[in-house]
Formats: sequence, structure tokens, C-alpha cells
Amino acid sequence: MEYVKVLAKEAQDFCVECFLKFGVPKEDVENIADHLVLANLRGVDSHGIIRIPYYTEGIRKGLVKPKSDIRVVEESSSITLLDGGNGLGIPVATKATDLAIDKAKSTGVGIVGVRNLGHVGMLAYYIKKAIGHGFIGFACVNAPAVMAPWGGRERIFGTNPMSIGFPMDDGRSIILDMATSVMAHFKIKVAALKGEKISEGVALDRQGRPATDPKEAFEGVLLPFGGYKGYGLVLAIEVLTSALLGALQSKYIRVTCPLRFK
Amino acid sequence: MEYVKVLAKEAQDFCVECFLKFGVPKEDVENIADHLVLANLRGVDSHGIIRIPYYTEGIRKGLVKPKSDIRVVEESSSITLLDGGNGLGIPVATKATDLAIDKAKSTGVGIVGVRNLGHVGMLAYYIKKAIGHGFIGFACVNAPAVMAPWGGRERIFGTNPMSIGFPMDDGRSIILDMATSVMAHFKIKVAALKGEKISEGVALDRQGRPATDPKEAFEGVLLPFGGYKGYGLVLAIEVLTSALLGALQSKYIRVTCPLRFK
Repeated sequence: MEYVKVLAKEAQDFCVECFLKFGVPKEDVENIADHLVLANLRGVDSHGIIRIPYYTEGIRKGLVKPKSDIRVVEESSSITLLDGGNGLGIPVATKATDLAIDKAKSTGVGIVGVRNLGHVGMLAYYIKKAIGHGFIGFACVNAPAVMAPWGGRERIFGTNPMSIGFPMDDGRSIILDMATSVMAHFKIKVAALKGEKISEGVALDRQGRPATDPKEAFEGVLLPFGGYKGYGLVLAIEVLTSALLGALQSKYIRVTCPLRFK
Repeated sequence: MEYVKVLAKEAQDFCVECFLKFGVPKEDVENIADHLVLANLRGVDSHGIIRIPYYTEGIRKGLVKPKSDIRVVEESSSITLLDGGNGLGIPVATKATDLAIDKAKSTGVGIVGVRNLGHVGMLAYYIKKAIGHGFIGFACVNAPAVMAPWGGRERIFGTNPMSIGFPMDDGRSIILDMATSVMAHFKIKVAALKGEKISEGVALDRQGRPATDPKEAFEGVLLPFGGYKGYGLVLAIEVLTSALLGALQSKYIRVTCPLRFK
């Protein structure tokens, strides 16, 4: 892999240019550029501008809509269920976060669930927004199935990440943002590109045997972090993000643009 | 260890009798008996009637009050912060759960934090209450420090358990209730009583070396489940249960009645 150094501003402008060409509204484009470049600046390159082709390919194939047509499905004073109208995940999830913050300002807590939307990027982005308003934030999502249940070997769950964050009095914050698989999917790709092995316990190959070759792991299945306890969280996140919202289970989510090996 | 079989009703009556003798109000006594016996019936003997001496000892020593004098510290329509007045944990936490359920009925979600109370027992008890009203439940607590941060060897955190549960259409439910240490503290005691070894990775001895002898583990420090990811949860639970509520951090919580080896 080769690296090229660019200024954050340049990366942001490039990002804006790309998404404008795909018919994404200006406001949403700026939101996406802000999100992706923040991910790079936080050192989470897997969720930075490297995702541009992944998102634009989704628009090109008609799998994700460039304009987000959000609809309220159900609402109470502290909770809203939204339908994202199959829009790009980042702008839809950003609007959902703004709505949750508004609700929290009035009742003390705001919870917004969204079904039917694209990949939402780095969860810490939304948590940072909540923290910016003085709130504790929590977010979780499911994703295309790449992980087995504890003791199993079938792809049933996404890497089902979660993020929680806390504001601090001195203006700093504590943010946890992690996949609930032992290793994030993208990091296995990176290991493959670097020609590195992965540890046992991270993944199984297609036959359900421990995989240490990242390519075999990629074709096989990831394992939950923390054994049966971590699996409990994986399952809880799956229920919160699919059954509760009337949204797709991980195993029915189509991959917009699979991560490929060069 | 020897086991004696008793009817649930008998265990409950015995429990009622014990706590009445310690001046606990009748309503609270029934609540505690219901809680402890339910734990036994769920197979969680570590949180069943075996806890009676632990709780009564706390009352006898004046560390926990037999009557719970609960005070509202802060309130919004979806959130309440309570001060438990150093009352017995189970009745205080049960009342807090009832309040959270009431709030959830009106705004969609109810969150109640409680500071200054005794050991709350089995978290699944409160989650089952929420589920009984058709709600998803989440609960977490901190506890006397027995766990090290990831990479550390000092007792900074309790076993900081969490529980989450979901009602299902067919009347059944899914409940996760777990310590965020690899192994619960009590299970290490059980291993010691049975003369069994524990796995490496569960605990460190006093010098910070991996402990497989449960007695050494008991004198040393437990480790978070799931490595640095599990540790992230441990820390999040600690913030939610101490800093957020103005309650004690795990390392300042006094042990009411330490678990002892025979």
C-alpha cells in the first residue's frame, strides 16, 4: 500500500466534488465530507475518504438514493422511528441524531431508530454531535452478515458496531467506538494487503476451522469479541437494529460494494 | 459443598422471616424474597438466598438501612436521579424500576439512576419487570473494586455487570445478564470451594502475574472480558453509575460483607 499526504481541506473538497457529481444535495455533500475527513483525522482510515467509491458505487447501481427522503413512522415525546427512504446513510443518520438531540433537550433523553438507509460510516461522528450538546451518546447498527453466532460458523450477523461517549467538564470527551467482532472487517483486509497473518480466534475459514490467513478469514466468517459475553451484545444490537425497527436482519442486507483485494 | 433441596415457597418464607427480624418493612421483605428466590429458580444461585447473610450483616453493621428513604434529586419527563438513602438495594432498585416504567409509558423511554444504595442483586430481575410491561430493559451497576483496567493490575472497577432484555411476541423473552469481568467474582469462589483451577486470562495474582489458583485470583484482581473492547464497556458502565449520578466510584465502595472461604 502506498500513502499520499493531502491537507484535510483538500480531501474535503475532493469529497464534495465527487458527491455533487452523483446528484447529492449540497447540504448533504458537506455533511458527508465533514464526516469522512473527520474519520481520517481521528485515525480511522477505514471509515474515511476510502469509502467514497463504496458510497458512489451504491448510488450508481441504484442501491442507495442520492437524496434522502426521510419519513416519520412512529413518534412519542422521547422516541422516533424514521424510515430513511433508502437514502445515503451519513446524511440520514446525521438528521436522526439532530432529532434525538432535540428530543433530549426537551425530555432528558432522545432515541431515534432508522430503518432503510445506507452505510452510516463512523458511529463516533454521531456521538461527538451528542457530546457537543452536553449529552451522553449511544449508537449501534447492524450490517451485511460476516459474523457467526458464538459456537456457530454461519454468517448471521454484521460486525454490529456500537459507540458510547461521554462529555467531560474540561471540554474533552471519552468515546468508545468498536465492532463487536474480535477484529473489524476492514482490518482483515488491511492485514491481507500487508501480507500479515491474523491471530487465531478472530475468524473461521469456510469449513469452520480457525483461520489465520486473512484471505481465508475474508471468505469465511468473523467471530464475536469476548466469547459468549460479546456474542450477547452482538445479538442485542441485532435485535435493537432489526426486529425493533422493522428493519432488515444482517443476513438479508445486500452489500453495496464489497471490499475487494487488489 | 452440600446441597439441600427446598420448595421455592419455603425458601421465600424463610427469607421473609429473616428480613422481618431485621426491621425491614413487610412490602420490601416480600420484594426481596421474590427477588432472591427468582434468582435461584433461574439457576443464578450466586444471587439467590445465599445472599441473605450478606444483606442482613450489612443491616446489623449499620452499613445499609433496613428502611429505604428514597429522595428525588433531579427530574425531567424521561429521567430521574434518585438518592436511595443508603437503603437495601433490592427494594430501592425495584422502586426505581417501577418509576422508569411509568416514565416510559408516558414518553416512550424512562431512565432512572440511583446513588447511595445497597447491593441490588440480580439485574435480570429489573429487566424482567420492564419486559412484563412490554418494554426493552437495560440496567448496569458498579460494585466494590475487584477488577483491573485493561493492561493494569490495580483494583479499580467492580465486576460492573450489565443486563439487557427484550420481550417477544410469543410471551417469551431474551435476557442477557453478565458481569463484565471474564468470570464473575462468585464463580471464582465456587471454583475454590470445588478445588478447581481457573483458566489463564481470568485473573492476576497480587504481583500481577496470571493466576490459575482461584484463591490467588481472589486475593489478586479480575480481568475485563473481551480484552480492550470489554474494558471499554467496563469503563462506560463505571462512568454511567458513578460520575453521571454523583455516586461512589467502585474503588471507594465498601464491601458490606466480604465473600469468605470456609
